[in-house]
Amino acid sequence: MANTYSIGIDIGGTNTDMGLVRDDGKIIDRNNIPTNVYTELKPYIHDIMECIGKLMKDNGVDKIEGIGIGAPNGNFYTGCVDNAPNLTIKGVLNFEEEMHKYMDVPVVLSNDANAAAFGEMVYGGAKGMQHFIMFTLGTGVGSGIVVDGRLVHGSTGGAGELGHNILIPNGRQCSCGRKGCLETYTSARGIVQTYCELKGVPVTSDINSKMIGDLANQGDPIALKTWEVVADQLGLAMANSVTFSAPEAIFLMGGPTKVGEPLLKPLQKAFEKYLLNIYEGSCKIRMSELKANEVAILGAAALIKMKK
Amino acid sequence: MANTYSIGIDIGGTNTDMGLVRDDGKIIDRNNIPTNVYTELKPYIHDIMECIGKLMKDNGVDKIEGIGIGAPNGNFYTGCVDNAPNLTIKGVLNFEEEMHKYMDVPVVLSNDANAAAFGEMVYGGAKGMQHFIMFTLGTGVGSGIVVDGRLVHGSTGGAGELGHNILIPNGRQCSCGRKGCLETYTSARGIVQTYCELKGVPVTSDINSKMIGDLANQGDPIALKTWEVVADQLGLAMANSVTFSAPEAIFLMGGPTKVGEPLLKPLQKAFEKYLLNIYEGSCKIRMSELKANEVAILGAAALIKMKK
Repeated sequence: MANTYSIGIDIGGTNTDMGLVRDDGKIIDRNNIPTNVYTELKPYIHDIMECIGKLMKDNGVDKIEGIGIGAPNGNFYTGCVDNAPNLTIKGVLNFEEEMHKYMDVPVVLSNDANAAAFGEMVYGGAKGMQHFIMFTLGTGVGSGIVVDGRLVHGSTGGAGELGHNILIPNGRQCSCGRKGCLETYTSARGIVQTYCELKGVPVTSDINSKMIGDLANQGDPIALKTWEVVADQLGLAMANSVTFSAPEAIFLMGGPTKVGEPLLKPLQKAFEKYLLNIYEGSCKIRMSELKANEVAILGAAALIKMKK
Repeated sequence: MANTYSIGIDIGGTNTDMGLVRDDGKIIDRNNIPTNVYTELKPYIHDIMECIGKLMKDNGVDKIEGIGIGAPNGNFYTGCVDNAPNLTIKGVLNFEEEMHKYMDVPVVLSNDANAAAFGEMVYGGAKGMQHFIMFTLGTGVGSGIVVDGRLVHGSTGGAGELGHNILIPNGRQCSCGRKGCLETYTSARGIVQTYCELKGVPVTSDINSKMIGDLANQGDPIALKTWEVVADQLGLAMANSVTFSAPEAIFLMGGPTKVGEPLLKPLQKAFEKYLLNIYEGSCKIRMSELKANEVAILGAAALIKMKK
């Protein structure tokens, strides 16, 4: 059988990455354009479609199955990007409609964490799973939830924001305006804050979560303690998420998860401690099997496999 | 078109209630047998099937669409009741298999809170909704979650245990062995505990949540304060659940929700306060529209409408 192909697009505030993805999950070729030079949708889509055309032509592909897009505030139901604060193009942007002027293929959008989760199911370690949750740790904390083999988008399209689950009532101030969100504890910034608090120094931008990871792996006791605290908080949040959808696995990805043992060992312990007994042994903790520099494009491309 | 009928069975530790349900949600007739006189499955199912036969015969119904069962630890995937602690019949009980010896119709099981949620969708206020969550407040706190028009059962069948979401880390001791579960605050017993704590007296069985409701409606300040505290806790849990599935409504049922204004007014306020801004205005708080003495049977009967 001939190979089939799709396009995955990862829209960031600075760059827009595009990849031609073969059905077995290999990125055949990729390309990118800047995002932040555009203030209007039409020229932006024009240039994206030109890039896609070139990717196809250069690789002798004359037909694609569809275009999947991972974007902040990407709305699965409407095919629009809704008022994304980090984009220079403002308003509700109908990607699906605009792209259909160029090419008559399915165009499917979702947010980046959802795309990452679905990419794990189509191309990564969650193949064949019907129920799992992905937590993405980075600047913020995102999540994607798969139930019955489908991404949970909810009534608005905005489901799966577990980074803004309030973990500790009246806890740390979150950028969302509320207090105690998971994100304030387990994002890269939250981890730095915990480290500085444990060290008794003001929070500083001289330190990042990668450095705290390196320190921990060198045996630094405050760094090790930091990851224990983070593991306890993340383990609680993960155990709470199990009461919702009883997933068979929780996947982790993102920079802070790369630290390894200093996070993962206490995380397993905390997760088991906080897990309701009826779920004992039913849910594994797994690391994303997709490469960090491929997950966004693969996740986006995977979205077209999800039926509306 | 002729009417179609189904059987709904509500299995409790003491009694087993059965109802013949018409497709429009009317319970045509009902009957019950004791549960706690049986120690073996076969005679128990025999007597249930005899009751069902009688319900059908008495009402001139010669064909039913299926049998739905709401039971503690009822497992949707296996058709079994798995080691329910409050039943005198012990072990893993294969209801589906045993009933099929008598009647060749679909037999569908789930737990009681899931059944209540699905009943709301088929026969109650959630008709036509694709995404909603039901919280049932009573001796414990249960929940049923509907995503894309289907109950979320998860990988084990045991999804939707939001009563055991840890709301307050290291909070009140829960019967599940962990601390700070939602149930320890918003179950009938949790509400009594809050009242006694606010009053500065030891927790006593002389008081129940109904009495605290009556006191609040008479203007008693400690009772009013109790419901405010409960509303804050429940509102937080509800807002957290929205980050999961972005439901269009959250339904409430059970004794403590009957208090009315003293709970519902501060609850709306707390829910809005804790809700992440992207969900603003997208999720309503609604009371179950099913009658308290009908919900268990209607919910059970509704289960056969959910395709496996």
